[in-house]
Amino acid sequence: MTPAGPILATVIGDPCGIGPEVLVKALAESPPRARVLAIGSAQAVKAAASSMRGGGPRVRAIARARDASYAPGILEVLDPGTLDAKHIRPGVVSADCGRAVVEWRALAAEIVHRGEADAIVQAPIHSGAIQAALGTGPIPSLAGGAPTHLMLVAGRLRIVHLTDHITLREMLDHVRAVELLALLRLVHDKLAQWGLRSPVIAVAGLNPHCQGPEERDEIAPAIRSAVESGIDARGPIAPDAVFRLAARGDYDCVVAHYHDQGHIAVKTANFGEGCAIVLGEPHLRVSVAHGTGFDIAGRGVASAQGMTVALHTATSLAAGRGFSGPG
Amino acid sequence: MTPAGPILATVIGDPCGIGPEVLVKALAESPPRARVLAIGSAQAVKAAASSMRGGGPRVRAIARARDASYAPGILEVLDPGTLDAKHIRPGVVSADCGRAVVEWRALAAEIVHRGEADAIVQAPIHSGAIQAALGTGPIPSLAGGAPTHLMLVAGRLRIVHLTDHITLREMLDHVRAVELLALLRLVHDKLAQWGLRSPVIAVAGLNPHCQGPEERDEIAPAIRSAVESGIDARGPIAPDAVFRLAARGDYDCVVAHYHDQGHIAVKTANFGEGCAIVLGEPHLRVSVAHGTGFDIAGRGVASAQGMTVALHTATSLAAGRGFSGPG
Repeated sequence: MTPAGPILATVIGDPCGIGPEVLVKALAESPPRARVLAIGSAQAVKAAASSMRGGGPRVRAIARARDASYAPGILEVLDPGTLDAKHIRPGVVSADCGRAVVEWRALAAEIVHRGEADAIVQAPIHSGAIQAALGTGPIPSLAGGAPTHLMLVAGRLRIVHLTDHITLREMLDHVRAVELLALLRLVHDKLAQWGLRSPVIAVAGLNPHCQGPEERDEIAPAIRSAVESGIDARGPIAPDAVFRLAARGDYDCVVAHYHDQGHIAVKTANFGEGCAIVLGEPHLRVSVAHGTGFDIAGRGVASAQGMTVALHTATSLAAGRGFSGPG
Repeated sequence: MTPAGPILATVIGDPCGIGPEVLVKALAESPPRARVLAIGSAQAVKAAASSMRGGGPRVRAIARARDASYAPGILEVLDPGTLDAKHIRPGVVSADCGRAVVEWRALAAEIVHRGEADAIVQAPIHSGAIQAALGTGPIPSLAGGAPTHLMLVAGRLRIVHLTDHITLREMLDHVRAVELLALLRLVHDKLAQWGLRSPVIAVAGLNPHCQGPEERDEIAPAIRSAVESGIDARGPIAPDAVFRLAARGDYDCVVAHYHDQGHIAVKTANFGEGCAIVLGEPHLRVSVAHGTGFDIAGRGVASAQGMTVALHTATSLAAGRGFSGPG
């Protein structure tokens, strides 16, 4: 059997968390139609595989991505060998592990950049561990300075946020036609690149029932400009209605203005496990939406659902089959 | 059998909408442990009852609330007789009906004020019809000038809003410790009055992950003051987490800061039909959350679930049994 499907450079996340465990479980329970190359500590992946009920995959450490065989029954782990396994203790915040995770992420980006993989999948990372390694401040971006926007994927609901971790008062100054139009173009281009032939993008209103100056002066003009340039943008649509309409399939994506507009919708509704994509990075990177699970790490009880969704989403998008293609 | 339970002054809503239909259906499908006095056009209620599959209740018009017998099998309608039935046409916006609805609401408030009923239940009204009667401007308040706050009830989730139909920018100026503390007292007192022995009130944050000046300078101090005065207020809790936690039962009520914070949560999640209560009015008034359904009025296809929830919630709260008592 010839290995097939896109190659997913899959960062195992913080090795003290549930990342390695959910990765081997997901590959066993619901393997995507993709070639999976793990990136991280081979020892951590081996430990996770050996503790699996029924026995996990055979794990093989490799030093270069092009050495991967993607042979059935084998999970290859690209391991730069810079993390001493003694630092890997389930549930313990470790600066060494934080430093390693940052290295693995950069390595995954390099591999995709060189064309040796098609997309990055990322298991949960621990911001505390990374800050212990690098000091406070944002986690190193993979976007090369470009503005980034978080896309949440939960069931049929996809939400892109114009702004993220800023206060509501600061956010109001970012709801500008020019910024919104740039985001609509970015979203349209990404959706098209992922295989949606005629993506329909809903734009949320900002104020109750869209009754505010921003809808009139910024949002509606941005939508008009987008439509004139051939983008199927709709709205503004009442913030308390748009997410429900998108969840039932009316739109391929919702553009929201602020963090909690989208996060309240996704987290309150029970759409099952989701994943996240950062728009603005040069390559597709699909992250598991849940955390490192330090409280349950090493106990073999973590659910692989989130990782399964991330792997299948990355497979489908990287293959140009939109969100609905088989994983 | 002696009629028992609280008396619910039940306004039939706009008679051109589905209000009369959902009322007679709800009473047939899932009668509350209450004495229901309908207020509105007896002819509209008779029409709805006679078109019910299996035959509806016997409808009797009365002129004074104290003439009601609450006898089994009979639905009494307090009808001031001021609306000519010729104006009642399903799905048609009518100024005469709008004027009548305002009169019926005021009548219901009077009856409760006189002690002849314990709570008001309100079927959907049509703001267009009321504006056609009274001109634009807000629908006449029953609060006598006191500030009012909307409580949404959806499943186990109860959300009270500090602000309602104002822009986000205006809203930011209302997130003040003094206003929030007054609202926490109001919510606590209402929940206690409705029979919750030790109500637990969660206060949402305003900014992403509660990381903003308002949490520090206004919200946290208000919560501290509330706790010092014996109110079990918790928070601020991250806006994207608090509604999910409340929906699973962690809190009796969430105080949200702006319209869409609560409405996105309720409308995106599928909690089933809900109802609404306006805090700040002198008497309990429980409104059906859905609209007048002009598009399906008169066809007998409307679902009575929302009205059932409103009737049962009013019954339970008026009887001092909280939100969990039998309807």
